Amino acid sequence: MANDQPTILVTNDDGITAPGIKALIEAVKGLGRIVVVAPDSPQSGMGHAVTIGEPLRLHKANVFEGIDAWECSGTPVDCVKLARDIILHRKPDLCVSGINHGANHSINVIYSGTMSAAMEAAIEGVPSIGFSLLDYRYEADFSVAQKVARTLATKMLEQSMPEHTLLNVNIPKVSEADFKGMKICRQAYAKWEEEFDARVDPRGKEYYWMTGRFVNMDTGSNTDVDALANGYASVVPVKFDLTDNEMRSRLEGEWKDIVS
Amino acid sequence: MANDQPTILVTNDDGITAPGIKALIEAVKGLGRIVVVAPDSPQSGMGHAVTIGEPLRLHKANVFEGIDAWECSGTPVDCVKLARDIILHRKPDLCVSGINHGANHSINVIYSGTMSAAMEAAIEGVPSIGFSLLDYRYEADFSVAQKVARTLATKMLEQSMPEHTLLNVNIPKVSEADFKGMKICRQAYAKWEEEFDARVDPRGKEYYWMTGRFVNMDTGSNTDVDALANGYASVVPVKFDLTDNEMRSRLEGEWKDIVS
Repeated sequence: MANDQPTILVTNDDGITAPGIKALIEAVKGLGRIVVVAPDSPQSGMGHAVTIGEPLRLHKANVFEGIDAWECSGTPVDCVKLARDIILHRKPDLCVSGINHGANHSINVIYSGTMSAAMEAAIEGVPSIGFSLLDYRYEADFSVAQKVARTLATKMLEQSMPEHTLLNVNIPKVSEADFKGMKICRQAYAKWEEEFDARVDPRGKEYYWMTGRFVNMDTGSNTDVDALANGYASVVPVKFDLTDNEMRSRLEGEWKDIVS
Repeated sequence: MANDQPTILVTNDDGITAPGIKALIEAVKGLGRIVVVAPDSPQSGMGHAVTIGEPLRLHKANVFEGIDAWECSGTPVDCVKLARDIILHRKPDLCVSGINHGANHSINVIYSGTMSAAMEAAIEGVPSIGFSLLDYRYEADFSVAQKVARTLATKMLEQSMPEHTLLNVNIPKVSEADFKGMKICRQAYAKWEEEFDARVDPRGKEYYWMTGRFVNMDTGSNTDVDALANGYASVVPVKFDLTDNEMRSRLEGEWKDIVS
């Protein structure tokens, strides 16, 4: 960085025209040089998908006053890869993703395009934060989320965090008066219980819409779900080394008959 | 289970007609009642994507002699969700995914549809294994991989593993004579260095193909990449709680000025 201002990559999974990404750009304005690379259409639920079977398109998008922005035909992860290799030709100093319209706490970190974009940046060695507001609506009020985003982005830039630092930040749907602050949390064990909606098309063939009910099965303390229910924004440090070291030790001991 | 035979769900990401899934079915034949639910087209690199914006199709597929099989229009994760909720109406006793045509060791666990299908089953509480062979070719020789798959599937069924057990198994491209056996490993820190291939279409517009070079940055011991390079199949126990507990403790201490 030296005397230059830091470069902040902004992306999301709801698409470049979603109000949430505009709110995030406003939140980090003035903290560095902002570069936006976001999908040209909604990409929710894309997880860590990458586009390998078809070519990618990338266009300059004149949608944010005075900000360099590009829209991409691919997934959120594709956006981060293209940003580095085709647009910036170097690592940004910070990547912020969101603000997602809807929760990405607990197990949702796995399905979330917002978090996968942030994770891709962290894999590349760029400290990164994904922000999600617990309000699905287009007209959601992002003001509390914006304060959280600015505070955390400032902190991450000031402290020059380890290059693989990745935070999953969720913000409750509360007014500024009712907002309790931020809490460092762990990922709750929760899951979706699917109930597919089976329908019949005009040609008489069945099809299914995925629907489902969120179930929190975690009664322990310090979870993100718990913090959010109590009016706090949850901040979960996330890692991409998925090794289960406890199970690893166990299998090394128990499976001596089949492993070397 | 009681006296009934166990139910084994077989899925993949290369699609129901890929040789790898046929090899996997043959490998686990006789260990229980086999039910196949797999994508109707290749879904490599889909990560943990789910289909939420469009309806899903599910058709009986008469492709494996004497085996109940369905093909699905969605992602590998969709297949696992539909298998449980629409076809089985209960949890299978084991889920096996693959055998993938190509490696899913190290960071590839994040991008892999094969592993995401297995992870989805583990989230649902079904012990699960993803298998990948380090040979991309259609005509790859799956015989070593089949032995590994049968040994591990048998072990998992015999031992009634914890319900969230998930293994990422990669098999080297070696002959049976050169195969060294299985090793319990940890996920190597490695990444893809992208070099997008920029081209110009017949209308004069640029487009990009994702390409890239795999770089192993992990010089430590016990990695999956290392085991594979030495002729072993790597077995990495995987978890879906992505909380970075070390960073969590650190931030709780250092960020007292901004968190509650």
